[in-house]
Amino acid sequence: MENKVGRILPDDLMAKMNLKPYESDEIGHPEVQRVAPKVRVTAGENKVVSSLEEVIKNNLKDGMTISFHHHFRNGDFAFNQVMDKIIELGYHDLTLAPSSLTGVMNDKVIEAIKKGVITNITSSGMRGSLGDFVSHGGLKNPVIFRSHGNRARSIEEGEIKIDIAFLGVPVSDPAGNANGQDGDAVFGSLGYALMDAKYADKVVLLTDNIVDYPNTPASIQQDQVDYVVKVDKIGDPDKIGSGATRFTKDPKELLIAQTVNKVIVNSPYFKQGFSFQTGSGGAALAVTRYLRQSMLDAGITASFALGGITKPTTDLLAEGLVKKVMDVQDFDKGAALSMAQNKDQQEIDASWYADPHNKGAVVNNLDVAILSALQIDTDFNVNVMTGSDGVIRGAIGGHQDAAKAKMTIITAPLVRGRNATIVPAVETVVTPGSSIDVVVTERGIAINPKRQDLLDAFSHVPGLKILPIAELQKLAEKQVGKPKKLEYTDRTVALIQYRDGTIIDTIKQVKD
Amino acid sequence: MENKVGRILPDDLMAKMNLKPYESDEIGHPEVQRVAPKVRVTAGENKVVSSLEEVIKNNLKDGMTISFHHHFRNGDFAFNQVMDKIIELGYHDLTLAPSSLTGVMNDKVIEAIKKGVITNITSSGMRGSLGDFVSHGGLKNPVIFRSHGNRARSIEEGEIKIDIAFLGVPVSDPAGNANGQDGDAVFGSLGYALMDAKYADKVVLLTDNIVDYPNTPASIQQDQVDYVVKVDKIGDPDKIGSGATRFTKDPKELLIAQTVNKVIVNSPYFKQGFSFQTGSGGAALAVTRYLRQSMLDAGITASFALGGITKPTTDLLAEGLVKKVMDVQDFDKGAALSMAQNKDQQEIDASWYADPHNKGAVVNNLDVAILSALQIDTDFNVNVMTGSDGVIRGAIGGHQDAAKAKMTIITAPLVRGRNATIVPAVETVVTPGSSIDVVVTERGIAINPKRQDLLDAFSHVPGLKILPIAELQKLAEKQVGKPKKLEYTDRTVALIQYRDGTIIDTIKQVKD
Repeated sequence: MENKVGRILPDDLMAKMNLKPYESDEIGHPEVQRVAPKVRVTAGENKVVSSLEEVIKNNLKDGMTISFHHHFRNGDFAFNQVMDKIIELGYHDLTLAPSSLTGVMNDKVIEAIKKGVITNITSSGMRGSLGDFVSHGGLKNPVIFRSHGNRARSIEEGEIKIDIAFLGVPVSDPAGNANGQDGDAVFGSLGYALMDAKYADKVVLLTDNIVDYPNTPASIQQDQVDYVVKVDKIGDPDKIGSGATRFTKDPKELLIAQTVNKVIVNSPYFKQGFSFQTGSGGAALAVTRYLRQSMLDAGITASFALGGITKPTTDLLAEGLVKKVMDVQDFDKGAALSMAQNKDQQEIDASWYADPHNKGAVVNNLDVAILSALQIDTDFNVNVMTGSDGVIRGAIGGHQDAAKAKMTIITAPLVRGRNATIVPAVETVVTPGSSIDVVVTERGIAINPKRQDLLDAFSHVPGLKILPIAELQKLAEKQVGKPKKLEYTDRTVALIQYRDGTIIDTIKQVKD
Repeated sequence: MENKVGRILPDDLMAKMNLKPYESDEIGHPEVQRVAPKVRVTAGENKVVSSLEEVIKNNLKDGMTISFHHHFRNGDFAFNQVMDKIIELGYHDLTLAPSSLTGVMNDKVIEAIKKGVITNITSSGMRGSLGDFVSHGGLKNPVIFRSHGNRARSIEEGEIKIDIAFLGVPVSDPAGNANGQDGDAVFGSLGYALMDAKYADKVVLLTDNIVDYPNTPASIQQDQVDYVVKVDKIGDPDKIGSGATRFTKDPKELLIAQTVNKVIVNSPYFKQGFSFQTGSGGAALAVTRYLRQSMLDAGITASFALGGITKPTTDLLAEGLVKKVMDVQDFDKGAALSMAQNKDQQEIDASWYADPHNKGAVVNNLDVAILSALQIDTDFNVNVMTGSDGVIRGAIGGHQDAAKAKMTIITAPLVRGRNATIVPAVETVVTPGSSIDVVVTERGIAINPKRQDLLDAFSHVPGLKILPIAELQKLAEKQVGKPKKLEYTDRTVALIQYRDGTIIDTIKQVKD
């Protein structure tokens, strides 16, 4: 069957997995019955155990679903400790359902797959050796990629049923009151992990820092926690943050950032109380810097900044230019440390952040979102999942979710190395073009034709060069030539869900 | 049938309502499947409506269960506005399931019962004209009285299924992010209402104070809220607090308070990092004052204070004598205002506070609880629900829950007016004697014989006069004589649940 972004989906697999094709980025008003965990009652004054092995042996069974969070990013010591033990104990047919997978987990996931320990994965993304391994057919069943908001939805509606969540935290008390704001391995918001803590049948905290009861603020509460496992070290503080808080000096990135700022400032959304989500990466940080100056110049303050948060954004909060930071994760140490200091930096869970199936997520109130892309096509569809070689090397993250902002801006260089970024058709559709409004490159900007209002608003702005997206695509092609068509086998190695759970695209096994 | 505290329960009713008799105050380790709400999906940027009538007409159906919270106490303007409209619209057979009922709601509840609008009630308690009305057989079906922790359990397990929660708040934004800490009618913690917000299918906020999005802290989150109804006035600030922050001058109360302090200080629990719950009322406030001095003298600080919180307790927090206040409700304005100022005053929901069927509530970590009583009998059973005339005039509150502390102290004058407080058998068993450790009166203290350790600890403390509880009972009888045995009809007007949902006692209709 073909879905509404023109992707052919494998009928057999769709039927077998009871999946529906992507229809629309409009969510509507379905009525959904949520699910709830099964709780084993305990008085729970002290849940501290030293043996991770005992916890696993007493609770894990073959075929179960286990989960982790990725707030430690590449400083994560929790995942490998747990997976090592699970592999050692010889479990089979587990489903791995983390909020995402970071590079430091790759070797262990591959080992677990090869040994039959893991046979199913759902994640926001995967990169490096693991993406390569899966793209070459290494995993038995197709990976399901979900956005952060969709993961929240799937957990709430029982599509992901977590049997045991293993959640590393930098601080907990003996009863399990925990947060991400204290200890050596601080990462700030526990936003994604809060879903696991609420919905998993069993919740196992891992920490190297057990403090006196009661530990507050309790992002994860004692009534959600079954065990607190004391470990020697839960994370490497130096590798938790991306560290990239320095502004880019790349002239192309700076030009893109300046242009993005010009787009925002000249849009109808730049007014007192506007809101934005920028994300991480050199260009995004530079946008924040330019935006700051524009806000000062215009005497405008923002009602809130959303998303994965960086220090430049918490600096705006401290300065009073942003009134609230709605924080589902922190990308660097500065932002993480700020959370404990500033009560206006509100920790939010993934459902509150972006779940499409609730009574209103913060993304629905978002004016401006600045997002990145690996590829954008002439229908404005965005690929953040596969490289120009068709290999998995990305993550949906909050991309589909934040794209529901009133104005969604995609930033990308026209080409990367010898590959075009603006292409006739993306290898993988992750975010539908219908939810994208503006594409900003160093050579000019393209505006989705359905946004005539933005075309009008930007048409006379000095320095904003507006081109049809097909023109940008041709400019890119002129620079690097037509790409060779990639060759895939018929086997589906991954399914890309849209945020409502429908299938927007698939990823096929690459030919060696 | 007879339950384990010797109360005869009506077999027919127990069978019909699928209820089990009380067995033990030990909860054990059952495995419980929780329930979850049905959610109608909406983008939810702006939920403000002005017509309460429209909200009710579009959502309420005959036979449904509606809920309210009692954090406004006698300053509540939410309940009567909603009930007026529901009565006016002619609904029938509703179940009323508030966290509790305060005096200001009585007339409206009676009117609704008389008109057939309300036919079932579950509550923590009722007093005054409503208690009288129910005790005289005014309600069709028996009331079910539940403790705050039991209400949380019942909601989580689906025994109370709330169709629509009407929750008054002093502040909300248009999307429904709300708290109890800002605005004119501040009451502090929203602890009980947080259960309704999480589990009701529909959540309707009422407020007179709508602020810019996003409002933080969001005790109630936008993703839980369907409507925000703007009303002229949500509460009377002067009637929210009990106001009783002045210390008692009643010599009997002062003596009891001094004795309680002596019991605490000489117990094995009075050490660095101990914890306590005092509650409200003159004696409780005086205890806090004496305890403060003892802590200063001994150089001891408490790890946490729990419960309904008063200003004397938040003063201890400010002074550093208490490290954390775990706050499910605030009894006065001082405590309510302190919540916004002191990050160590942690708002907790009723489940985290006291739910017996979770993975560990705060009450399980409690060292010392000081509780009041209408009657105590020689088996240490406590009645906080019916007067000496057998009429309903009380509330379970957190009594059964906090009684699980390591040392539970009941304070009571030996007699009240012409009625004994220490009696051969309480009119109504609310909290089983097995969970009570010490009874403090102005004439002496009694220690539960099963606590030989406390008997040993207190036997040589100067000024602590220890008597068998039967002696205290005789002293009381000597003072006021034997009471006439009360006469009841056979009809059950209320059921008292223990915190695990079993039936610990019933209340019969009084004979006119």
